[in-house]
Amino acid sequence: MSIITLITDYGWKDHFVGILKGKLYSHFPEGTIVDISHSVDKFNLFEANYLLDASYNHFPKGSVHIMTVDAAQTNENKHIALLHDGHFFVGADNGVFGNLLKKIKPEKIVEITIHDRLHEKATDLDVFAMVATHLAKGGSLNVIGKEISSLKKLAELNPIIDEQATSIKGNVIYIDDFGNCVTNISKKLIDDTAKGRKYTIRFSNKRIENIKKHYADFKNTDSASLKNQEGNNIAIFNENDLLEIAIYRSNPHSVGSASSLLGLRFRDVVTVEFE
Amino acid sequence: MSIITLITDYGWKDHFVGILKGKLYSHFPEGTIVDISHSVDKFNLFEANYLLDASYNHFPKGSVHIMTVDAAQTNENKHIALLHDGHFFVGADNGVFGNLLKKIKPEKIVEITIHDRLHEKATDLDVFAMVATHLAKGGSLNVIGKEISSLKKLAELNPIIDEQATSIKGNVIYIDDFGNCVTNISKKLIDDTAKGRKYTIRFSNKRIENIKKHYADFKNTDSASLKNQEGNNIAIFNENDLLEIAIYRSNPHSVGSASSLLGLRFRDVVTVEFE
Amino acid sequence: MSIITLITDYGWKDHFVGILKGKLYSHFPEGTIVDISHSVDKFNLFEANYLLDASYNHFPKGSVHIMTVDAAQTNENKHIALLHDGHFFVGADNGVFGNLLKKIKPEKIVEITIHDRLHEKATDLDVFAMVATHLAKGGSLNVIGKEISSLKKLAELNPIIDEQATSIKGNVIYIDDFGNCVTNISKKLIDDTAKGRKYTIRFSNKRIENIKKHYADFKNTDSASLKNQEGNNIAIFNENDLLEIAIYRSNPHSVGSASSLLGLRFRDVVTVEFE
Repeated sequence: MSIITLITDYGWKDHFVGILKGKLYSHFPEGTIVDISHSVDKFNLFEANYLLDASYNHFPKGSVHIMTVDAAQTNENKHIALLHDGHFFVGADNGVFGNLLKKIKPEKIVEITIHDRLHEKATDLDVFAMVATHLAKGGSLNVIGKEISSLKKLAELNPIIDEQATSIKGNVIYIDDFGNCVTNISKKLIDDTAKGRKYTIRFSNKRIENIKKHYADFKNTDSASLKNQEGNNIAIFNENDLLEIAIYRSNPHSVGSASSLLGLRFRDVVTVEFE
Repeated sequence: MSIITLITDYGWKDHFVGILKGKLYSHFPEGTIVDISHSVDKFNLFEANYLLDASYNHFPKGSVHIMTVDAAQTNENKHIALLHDGHFFVGADNGVFGNLLKKIKPEKIVEITIHDRLHEKATDLDVFAMVATHLAKGGSLNVIGKEISSLKKLAELNPIIDEQATSIKGNVIYIDDFGNCVTNISKKLIDDTAKGRKYTIRFSNKRIENIKKHYADFKNTDSASLKNQEGNNIAIFNENDLLEIAIYRSNPHSVGSASSLLGLRFRDVVTVEFE
Repeated sequence: MSIITLITDYGWKDHFVGILKGKLYSHFPEGTIVDISHSVDKFNLFEANYLLDASYNHFPKGSVHIMTVDAAQTNENKHIALLHDGHFFVGADNGVFGNLLKKIKPEKIVEITIHDRLHEKATDLDVFAMVATHLAKGGSLNVIGKEISSLKKLAELNPIIDEQATSIKGNVIYIDDFGNCVTNISKKLIDDTAKGRKYTIRFSNKRIENIKKHYADFKNTDSASLKNQEGNNIAIFNENDLLEIAIYRSNPHSVGSASSLLGLRFRDVVTVEFE
């Protein structure tokens, strides 16, 4: 079995996701296709990057991950495929794979060169479908492109540590469907900078003293004390070990969420202040 | 073949549904996964319960139904799995399985006890994925938990019959995507209480005289007379034999729906009055 | 392998899509089901028709396409199945298959007559599931219905060429998730009418001089000049060779889209004026 995952900004109303699947199954009837998200904010490579980074390694090695956000081929936006951490990735050299590569050197990157083998009216979807199914069936990167050595980087929102190491300034990089606000500040960065010091989280005029290690910290708590948490601001390290500003049991459609109640938006500053 | 169905309140934008599927396929590549809904109102166990109750028996016996709404493990919210009516259910003891069990005694319920067999950073999704695939592959409930005898009940909205049996007071328990309002008043309850008497349906200042037995009652009607129904309030027994207040051919995004035009909302009272 | 595709207006929240899949897998566990869209505007046969027409031939021959929009069975809305262009279609004789048939004579159409073989509480979904899986497994049209020779046509929005052939007046027939506005004016119709003349596109008080042959026309353009296009109105022939009014890199949720910025809506007039 080989899995092909999809991250797009096509939305769920149009036929584009369906026809991509039609093309994939046409090449590879036995494949398994999994939707990660089709609701990426249009052309938003930061969101696309976050979702890819947070999801790919929950799939078996050998899976192929297609990313079509802002992936139309132009002279400066080449189609690429790469092998990294035992997973294949297919998309465009638009910076979206930057975070992945920041962590580990990819095993191999190729610029896709099969476009002239496709029919005249072929679209980007035809290219991605042919390449992804080739890889999912165990095909090699060599036959679909020429090796290249580096990729464009996304002009990232990077957390900044001040000179005296008294604070880390980060940003909200993703707001999830519960309205919780994920930042680009990792647990490791805080621990490395803290060197044992205590710290508080600040954003706009709010302050949070404690960071939960994990939502699972609530595991051994009884309902009564959990009830008291409802609606409270909390800071937590999420499942990707990134600092997340949340409201316990928030609901954007009724009681409100961290994003709506605290006024936090994409790119807003969140600061960790050390004592 | 074994089917695993999913009901969550994760929404379609985030990666959570995708990574749950990644974990399921990692354990059980041959499985078939079907989305029932990921748009349950966040933490709304009534909606989750309605969707589960209305959907599970359209799947083959032996299917496994995962329900993740408000299913984070705490001291008072144990993870459970149960066998009922030939189907397996996996989730938390938060009352959401109450309606199912009200109807028939479940064959077996276990409290899941495999948590310590998982890696340190395992989340609720890892637990559900491991248990659901174990059951879908034909595994036994015994090896994943210890038997328990009863479950918490959802503090339900129950229809009330007045002392003289002249009326039934029920509530709207679900509003569907067409804006139609499902109540908790079943055809059987009306028939048992009516004992042959005629009745009318009342809500706010509206009154409906006839209940269609089924949408299929429109089957032998010609277009001209159907056209006359468009936009009319109707009461109908839906495919689960629950009284539903609807507007014929409603569209919440243009002409309006039963919910928007009649002002009906979740929990609102609907009364059946007998002559 | 056989693929069954789905186009409905059921939305993603309710259980209806899930139970349709449950019924399909119950009959045909090895089938592959692909969602084209469940977000068709309720009862909007024009949208349903556009999505079907634009998607079906990206699937392998032998695929079965279920269309449930406004497909409740009545005396004047018969359930039908048909073979056309190597693909099977299952739905109701409500005009939605009109465009397909306009282009090529279908190989065979049957009115479905199996309703009395189903259980008493069977719904339209049971009918479609039984018929579609029968066909996907290689079954014949003959055993599920009686042959008929013609179908109702959708009262279509057809482009009009004026007497002197100085202009074509068409309409917006679909607005996609990017807010781009698809018209019913095909490249072929323009080319046949132009006979070499130049033309401009007009709608409300706007005018566009050039039509891109394809989004892929941007392929050999560098980023700098593409950047200049951002936010500009463009006219393009889309992947179905229909004239489409778009805004380059539009986003309905932030910068706006062709529909929101140009005020174009479903059925609005778009004119091609020849010199």
